[in-house]
Amino acid sequence: MEEREISQAVIRRLPRYYRYLGELLEHGVERISSNDLSKRMKVTASQIRQDLNNFGGFGQQGYGYNVKYLYTEIGKILGLDNQHNMVIIGAGNLGQALANYAAFEKRGFVLKGLFDVNPRLVGITIRGVEIRMMDELSDFIQKNDIEIGVLAIPKTRAIDVANVLVDNGVRAIWNFAHTDLNLPDNIIVENVHLSESLMRLSYNITRYNMEHTDNS
Amino acid sequence: MEEREISQAVIRRLPRYYRYLGELLEHGVERISSNDLSKRMKVTASQIRQDLNNFGGFGQQGYGYNVKYLYTEIGKILGLDNQHNMVIIGAGNLGQALANYAAFEKRGFVLKGLFDVNPRLVGITIRGVEIRMMDELSDFIQKNDIEIGVLAIPKTRAIDVANVLVDNGVRAIWNFAHTDLNLPDNIIVENVHLSESLMRLSYNITRYNMEHTDNS
Repeated sequence: MEEREISQAVIRRLPRYYRYLGELLEHGVERISSNDLSKRMKVTASQIRQDLNNFGGFGQQGYGYNVKYLYTEIGKILGLDNQHNMVIIGAGNLGQALANYAAFEKRGFVLKGLFDVNPRLVGITIRGVEIRMMDELSDFIQKNDIEIGVLAIPKTRAIDVANVLVDNGVRAIWNFAHTDLNLPDNIIVENVHLSESLMRLSYNITRYNMEHTDNS
Repeated sequence: MEEREISQAVIRRLPRYYRYLGELLEHGVERISSNDLSKRMKVTASQIRQDLNNFGGFGQQGYGYNVKYLYTEIGKILGLDNQHNMVIIGAGNLGQALANYAAFEKRGFVLKGLFDVNPRLVGITIRGVEIRMMDELSDFIQKNDIEIGVLAIPKTRAIDVANVLVDNGVRAIWNFAHTDLNLPDNIIVENVHLSESLMRLSYNITRYNMEHTDNS
């Protein structure tokens, strides 16, 4: 593996390559040129070659990429060849939506537990996983080799719960709470700030309207 | 307003400025230096100055930023001073979670309708918004001045539904379906691909493990 730093922009694109290659595989495509992949994905062929060169290439000039091989290798780069045990904190609509994504499990993300503060949810199971109360959380994480904690709770509780997760050995937080967690540097945090995403959408609408008013 | 192109990286950061400024306002802070804002947000002060200069500055050397003014101006840049009517397609857990975010409405995103294919959901209301069946969708969009369509449905149906939305005048799609929509260039699309986000998390865990094994 290369020693140099891979840019966050490349990392953002890798899962998209993985998705497209997975779809090609499902359709029985064995080999694809960077030009054809480029047309499908609407990025330039040189961008594709450059991105994949970060990981040592994978293509032979003139022969294109072996889809199965490339899919498998990108999967390994993304860590999908390992099992990642996770718990979801918050069994409201969002937590339940995440618990119901069976596709995660196919990629090695195994939901082990689902936690909430609402006693009315005790004993309900989602895809076979029982909802438990928060007082069981610390013990459960330690006994079940939990690597990823998913925060599907309001921001007021997120920082405290994140600290409990980390104190008990969780390595990474998938954070849907609308706040920054400020955890130690060795903890991986991936934020999904939905309201920020919606604001980018509205920025782009506003910008588009402005540009098309100016030019008319 | 400046004519030059604002980079997507700046646009990604703007909603975060807006969030921090909103929190400062709530705590009664009237003025903040770029250094203090920098410490809170964990970005460099020069990054902050550079980002805000894209929109004409807002700060006076030595006086810092007026929090209320900056918050309001960034809100305008993000288009939050206008009302954006939206519909959510898919009233499963994810659609209901999105419908329940009251915070969206505070920022001008007004949920007008919620649609699903499941007849058992007819007549149920979420925050006062009734769930309707898909055959009412086209007519509803036209009559209610809908600007944003939210896709909280599986990828197999997403492209067809996106086309219906666009054909009836929707300007922007907030897409949670795990597929690219390939809509005309004048339609704004903001994708939230959750499984790609989870893969980035696992990439970062894997990378971290590798780097810390190599060095030991």
